[in-house]
Amino acid sequence: MAELTERGRRTRQRIVEETGRQILAAGIGGTTLDDVRAATLTSKSQLFHYFPGGKDELVRAVAEWEGAQLMAAQEPWVHDLSTRESWEAWRQALVDYYIGQGRWACPIGSLASEAAARNPELAAVVAQAFRDWGALLAAGVRRMQDAGRLGGHVDPDRVAASIMSAIQGGLVLSQPLHDPWPLEAALEQALHALDTPAPR
Amino acid sequence: MAELTERGRRTRQRIVEETGRQILAAGIGGTTLDDVRAATLTSKSQLFHYFPGGKDELVRAVAEWEGAQLMAAQEPWVHDLSTRESWEAWRQALVDYYIGQGRWACPIGSLASEAAARNPELAAVVAQAFRDWGALLAAGVRRMQDAGRLGGHVDPDRVAASIMSAIQGGLVLSQPLHDPWPLEAALEQALHALDTPAPR
Repeated sequence: MAELTERGRRTRQRIVEETGRQILAAGIGGTTLDDVRAATLTSKSQLFHYFPGGKDELVRAVAEWEGAQLMAAQEPWVHDLSTRESWEAWRQALVDYYIGQGRWACPIGSLASEAAARNPELAAVVAQAFRDWGALLAAGVRRMQDAGRLGGHVDPDRVAASIMSAIQGGLVLSQPLHDPWPLEAALEQALHALDTPAPR
Repeated sequence: MAELTERGRRTRQRIVEETGRQILAAGIGGTTLDDVRAATLTSKSQLFHYFPGGKDELVRAVAEWEGAQLMAAQEPWVHDLSTRESWEAWRQALVDYYIGQGRWACPIGSLASEAAARNPELAAVVAQAFRDWGALLAAGVRRMQDAGRLGGHVDPDRVAASIMSAIQGGLVLSQPLHDPWPLEAALEQALHALDTPAPR
């Protein structure tokens, strides 16, 4: 992709974003290249120029882009998280991001459910997104410990997994209810893991 | 459906189960009535005899059946939950159920993601399944409180939502990793909400 012109880059990005929208609305199985072409006014040869691997490659590009968006929404707090206040600012930015999506869905979480059984390469992209995300949150938990705000017996990786699970599962419950309260309750409970003080 | 013979009931059930398998493997969007007919060796007229509303009605029947299976897997503990031991037996039965599915997926949770935006009637079935499930778990939390094992300041509905979110989100993370550890970490953290003793 190094040789893409600015215009080519924009066209490629337009295709990725439209595919992401269709996947959120109809699932991977319900998304067709024909629909993507129609919505982006691109020809078959254009589409395969940018994505020689066809739908599979396009869906992976969507996963990578959605993952980058999700991480960007957590800036800059996700790189700090050394205080409870920093975690709170992070939490608020993330919840605002999901609200801004217009529905209670995590693009990466939605892909995870569809990817696991059917598309091992996509599952690998999703698994890596979760690992990268978990590593950042675990680093924050360690900063809390290093600063003496959290007991050293707490396992940073398990706390990170609990918090990510609360987000994903809270969204699963909030979606059909059209109400964010399960997400907020789950995240609050998961963040209680940060309230175990270091012994004095 | 009152007039179904035993044979008719079995055929209908066979169609429901096969559709559930295809939805888990390909999503609602990737499941077609033609594929279901081929796998169950049923004719178009048979299929529409049992499901006059077509695919939408069939998918709702799958959601109801999966919801019933999920609740049955939690018997009998889900009706007790008055002690930490009862919660532990419940947790184990539920995790065994998900392992027994052969993949880390909750049939109801998977439907929730696909249903919310596209199919309001299905979203209503899924929302009701979550509400029924949450009501049982909240009743267990109240039994813990009535027995003096848990503080009265704890909100049973929020605890129930946290626990269900940990399950759903833990599965979302466990799927692409092919490893149940995020589910176990998330559920352990959510169940800590039950460890707040009543003041003496």
